[in-house]
Amino acid sequence: MMDRKISFSSDYTKGAHPRILERLSETNFEQIDGYGTDEYCKSAADKIKEICECPEGDVFFLAGGTQTNQTVIDMLLKPYEGVVAAKTGHISVHEAGAIEFSGHKVLNIGNCGEEKDTLKYGDNIGKISASELDRFVAGFYDDANHEHMVFPGAVYISHPTEYGTLYTRKELSDISAVCKKYGVPLFLDGARLGYGLMSKRSDVTIRDIAELVDVFYIGGTKVGALFGEAVVFPRGTRIAHPVPVIKQHGALLAKGWILGLMFDTLFTDNLYFDISKNAIEMADLLREGLRNKGYELFIDSPTNQQFIVVTNEKLKELDKNIRYGFWEKKDEGHTVIRLATDWATKKEDIDRLMKYL
Amino acid sequence: MMDRKISFSSDYTKGAHPRILERLSETNFEQIDGYGTDEYCKSAADKIKEICECPEGDVFFLAGGTQTNQTVIDMLLKPYEGVVAAKTGHISVHEAGAIEFSGHKVLNIGNCGEEKDTLKYGDNIGKISASELDRFVAGFYDDANHEHMVFPGAVYISHPTEYGTLYTRKELSDISAVCKKYGVPLFLDGARLGYGLMSKRSDVTIRDIAELVDVFYIGGTKVGALFGEAVVFPRGTRIAHPVPVIKQHGALLAKGWILGLMFDTLFTDNLYFDISKNAIEMADLLREGLRNKGYELFIDSPTNQQFIVVTNEKLKELDKNIRYGFWEKKDEGHTVIRLATDWATKKEDIDRLMKYL
Amino acid sequence: MMDRKISFSSDYTKGAHPRILERLSETNFEQIDGYGTDEYCKSAADKIKEICECPEGDVFFLAGGTQTNQTVIDMLLKPYEGVVAAKTGHISVHEAGAIEFSGHKVLNIGNCGEEKDTLKYGDNIGKISASELDRFVAGFYDDANHEHMVFPGAVYISHPTEYGTLYTRKELSDISAVCKKYGVPLFLDGARLGYGLMSKRSDVTIRDIAELVDVFYIGGTKVGALFGEAVVFPRGTRIAHPVPVIKQHGALLAKGWILGLMFDTLFTDNLYFDISKNAIEMADLLREGLRNKGYELFIDSPTNQQFIVVTNEKLKELDKNIRYGFWEKKDEGHTVIRLATDWATKKEDIDRLMKYL
Amino acid sequence: MMDRKISFSSDYTKGAHPRILERLSETNFEQIDGYGTDEYCKSAADKIKEICECPEGDVFFLAGGTQTNQTVIDMLLKPYEGVVAAKTGHISVHEAGAIEFSGHKVLNIGNCGEEKDTLKYGDNIGKISASELDRFVAGFYDDANHEHMVFPGAVYISHPTEYGTLYTRKELSDISAVCKKYGVPLFLDGARLGYGLMSKRSDVTIRDIAELVDVFYIGGTKVGALFGEAVVFPRGTRIAHPVPVIKQHGALLAKGWILGLMFDTLFTDNLYFDISKNAIEMADLLREGLRNKGYELFIDSPTNQQFIVVTNEKLKELDKNIRYGFWEKKDEGHTVIRLATDWATKKEDIDRLMKYL
Repeated sequence: MMDRKISFSSDYTKGAHPRILERLSETNFEQIDGYGTDEYCKSAADKIKEICECPEGDVFFLAGGTQTNQTVIDMLLKPYEGVVAAKTGHISVHEAGAIEFSGHKVLNIGNCGEEKDTLKYGDNIGKISASELDRFVAGFYDDANHEHMVFPGAVYISHPTEYGTLYTRKELSDISAVCKKYGVPLFLDGARLGYGLMSKRSDVTIRDIAELVDVFYIGGTKVGALFGEAVVFPRGTRIAHPVPVIKQHGALLAKGWILGLMFDTLFTDNLYFDISKNAIEMADLLREGLRNKGYELFIDSPTNQQFIVVTNEKLKELDKNIRYGFWEKKDEGHTVIRLATDWATKKEDIDRLMKYL
Repeated sequence: MMDRKISFSSDYTKGAHPRILERLSETNFEQIDGYGTDEYCKSAADKIKEICECPEGDVFFLAGGTQTNQTVIDMLLKPYEGVVAAKTGHISVHEAGAIEFSGHKVLNIGNCGEEKDTLKYGDNIGKISASELDRFVAGFYDDANHEHMVFPGAVYISHPTEYGTLYTRKELSDISAVCKKYGVPLFLDGARLGYGLMSKRSDVTIRDIAELVDVFYIGGTKVGALFGEAVVFPRGTRIAHPVPVIKQHGALLAKGWILGLMFDTLFTDNLYFDISKNAIEMADLLREGLRNKGYELFIDSPTNQQFIVVTNEKLKELDKNIRYGFWEKKDEGHTVIRLATDWATKKEDIDRLMKYL
Repeated sequence: MMDRKISFSSDYTKGAHPRILERLSETNFEQIDGYGTDEYCKSAADKIKEICECPEGDVFFLAGGTQTNQTVIDMLLKPYEGVVAAKTGHISVHEAGAIEFSGHKVLNIGNCGEEKDTLKYGDNIGKISASELDRFVAGFYDDANHEHMVFPGAVYISHPTEYGTLYTRKELSDISAVCKKYGVPLFLDGARLGYGLMSKRSDVTIRDIAELVDVFYIGGTKVGALFGEAVVFPRGTRIAHPVPVIKQHGALLAKGWILGLMFDTLFTDNLYFDISKNAIEMADLLREGLRNKGYELFIDSPTNQQFIVVTNEKLKELDKNIRYGFWEKKDEGHTVIRLATDWATKKEDIDRLMKYL
Repeated sequence: MMDRKISFSSDYTKGAHPRILERLSETNFEQIDGYGTDEYCKSAADKIKEICECPEGDVFFLAGGTQTNQTVIDMLLKPYEGVVAAKTGHISVHEAGAIEFSGHKVLNIGNCGEEKDTLKYGDNIGKISASELDRFVAGFYDDANHEHMVFPGAVYISHPTEYGTLYTRKELSDISAVCKKYGVPLFLDGARLGYGLMSKRSDVTIRDIAELVDVFYIGGTKVGALFGEAVVFPRGTRIAHPVPVIKQHGALLAKGWILGLMFDTLFTDNLYFDISKNAIEMADLLREGLRNKGYELFIDSPTNQQFIVVTNEKLKELDKNIRYGFWEKKDEGHTVIRLATDWATKKEDIDRLMKYL
């Protein structure tokens, strides 16, 4: 399996940070309690709660993003409630109906796909705004027939979004205020959280998030772990028994300590933030190079995913040397592609990529 | 985290076979396609299909047992169908209602817990019989009201069972014949499959299983992998799109190649079978020692789980030195405990354990 | 469609009490608000709450038994909870998995089918006991693995049971006390409630029921209405929005006032109780006649359903003249059949039946 | 409950056609088999199949619209499939998430609410077009990630739509062709079917519908029955056991013959069509009157629902004398209201209404 082309297709193409593999080896024959009841999970949770300044919080470790979204949303909603999300949200489009499989509607807000024409890319695509959320929820309760409709029971946002964009602290704070106003919990999907936190254009800290949302997760799959996401309820879950809910979704790993150990490693000596920063620096380098070479940025993304417009001829050429993420056809002659850096991208990789571009 | 007591509490207390950790390190910076579409998954699937002599089969890699049971059963059943299982089956008792969460009833057969009094331990506990299955399904179709009842749409068995017992080839063959007679697919939960296949008292091969059942899984979590189960449909799935079903259950790992790589390693150079054999040899040694010391075997288990009866006083003493699995109270003065060996148990571990016993 | 045989096959073979048809005609062209928000529903609810002495209660009108069981149980349970019921309960066997379709397990208690051999018929068949319920729930919480199991979140009983048997006030009170002890709501399926309340061998009043259970329903389908069941939460529902739950189950009738009007009629001038009493008197007459003719009573049922054992030859003869309910084969030569009286059975019907018997 | 204001608020404010009440009385003490297995259901089904010219069809009788939509869609879809519908479709907005409760996503197409600005009212609002359906399904299969998305497994349309608009025969035929092209069944919600069929501006017959769709229902609740919808699969259901699916949804009425009898009556002597025609004639009269009085028609609806724009002052005046359906606020000073005629509306009612308008 040699001679692979260099790949910028996504941020989940590599294994784990070497320190994680080392610790897996070091602890391999310790005999550890199952189902997340072990000391590594406790240690990782403690470190995360300390960083988030939420000593009363609950932390759970799950295996992947869709599983986490499905399980968390099911913990938040009553049977007759749905979750409000952007039309472009991962739960809205790319989870094969996992939320509906759990019995809940995804209530879409946003300008219904018009974003491409009317929003400034790099600013708002993939996001929801506090004002449209407020209008939506207020409109729901104003509707005389609302008891025949799906109640907005939670709000889902992703940060960074699926388009690499970010909320500002002010925007998050406004959305949080609308959620509090209506008593609707706010859930932040942080599959790429590290890349958002370390973006030079972000004013949002992990403490801000812990303060402003009711539950969020810290992505490991895309940021240095073999797999895994750390779910944080900064002020505790509201349900008496989260474990059977997790189990019922097939999301309770027998050897849960593997997740605990990975997150314990990531949250030791600032590792999670340092490797996230690497991805951002490589993305900044890449964006600069792209601009210098005259590429059109589809979105001015401040995070690790860069989206560019290429001619179809250029694309054929690139196919020979690199792997990228197909995003969408822009028009007959042009295609939008995604180039993603990650926690392990090296300067040499960017240099090599720039040569082909 | 030193000075841990030696543990025989379960077979999922250790990490992975060292060869797996090595290969994870070796491949860590290869950039591999996601969602199980990679070459390691293909290679592992090919090796499994070769060993099972089912070239037309489909193989999927999932993360854990409950997730696998839930997803596979949902693939097999129509909405108005349930799955037939022993009352003691994992899906019947220990999955927090994961099958019902997917909308399906678990239809229990068996003498309703009476097994303890009337069946010979070591022979049949935890199993279903072809004759009671036949009576159950025939009785269902004979019932004039059966369209108001839950249709038996699949049959679930575990091998080894949760009690460590095994089906004979004849028993499996008879159950398979009943399933064929009624057109009901047969699903075998092989969370501990290796330990069943290598038992000296078993006449069942993995090829037999591939021939006799419609879908089964080869447990990795309890047999040498960090985590993971390989689902085998020896004659292919019957549904057009298994991937969205897996995704919808939150069971599609982004870095699916990790699972592929682990099973590829386990199915190279007979590793899966060799390490399973180790657990059996250690269990045999343990049983012999237990008998010599006069312990009452609760079940004469032919696999890696041994169940013994100890006085409550003895139990307190054991608590100081070893960790075991509490199974159930036998009577006021006695308790049943489980001692499990695994792929990594050493002779020294048994010797040390015997000293305390 | 003339020349029908007289039928005792069930208690849902006739339309509605004539007074109901009259009122439907009288109100046919009134224009009434939809979805149960009308004055007839309010009037019926008020009458029921007065009779039940539960002024703070909530009353809903649904169309049928399975729909009611499914909707009410879904209102009571959290996602990780199941409902405890007798193995013979309607929700356990004859609702095509409607509870599991809603995501919940039916947790069966009882001696697993042994009832036929060990219980005295007419006393306990079809019932659960406070002591076995207590053992079951206590055993659940005692189990170290209970977070991997389905939590008992509600208890379902039927009164009369599917076998026509009844709880005594003492038995109901004991079950209620166990439910309170564990904080588990108690739900009573009263599809044939009238026939239970008017049984001469019952000491249970509708006020007793309203006091002892958390929710119950008053069956209309089998007791004088065209269709419909009145669900009573004597101390109110605990959920903020019952209407969307009902709607979501497809159980919110557009012309809900039809249900309101029917129950308003049944609860005017004691009609529900009077017509229920008729069924009991006819059943008593029937039972006496059966005894006089030397028939073996399969169960000594105190309500409107009578179960007798007949030889297969006799059965063939009966087939020519009457319709009955097949219940089960007793042995090679004998069959158990059900003969049900109802709100409209006349003495002449019994006389005619006795002639054929 | 005298002195009610005349109501045009909806088409489900009255009971049933008197002939139906008569037949309920006539048959009240016949003893009829339960669960839709009776001769009245058979007779009604035969009449409907004859009119639809689909002798091989299957016909089921359910109680209401949401129940029918939920049950039918669940019959059509595989677990990983969703149903395509207009954003304005009843299943999209006004069924409290009944489809999602069954595990399926409603996939919305249409110009996302823009209809109000860009479509000609009376023509297309509430409808989907063959071309956008084709684009949507083609786009789905073109998407490289479509196995991570919800498959379009059925198409839902309403005719008349929730806005009273109608498909032409050509439009229906084109949509049907797209469905056939992709192998996706087409389901037509005919809650108000009669009013669509009898519209003077429609070229669609019930035979056309039976030919062009895979399943549809003939609304009874809004067209002359006490309640009930007749589901027609013109070429049969594709599932082996529809009854348990219906039962599982709580939608199998014990006294199913009541539904059979009502539809048997409606489909005797052209009654269904005649009373539907009455509603249309009354609506035409109403529209003419509205136009004469200078009211602005919000939509030029060809069926029984008329939508007009009134000033808020006028509305207050109307409140004193009539009941109407609030539709939506148009702007600060104006409101859109719905005036619905039905099978029993009389010319005097229109005259009286016109006086107040």
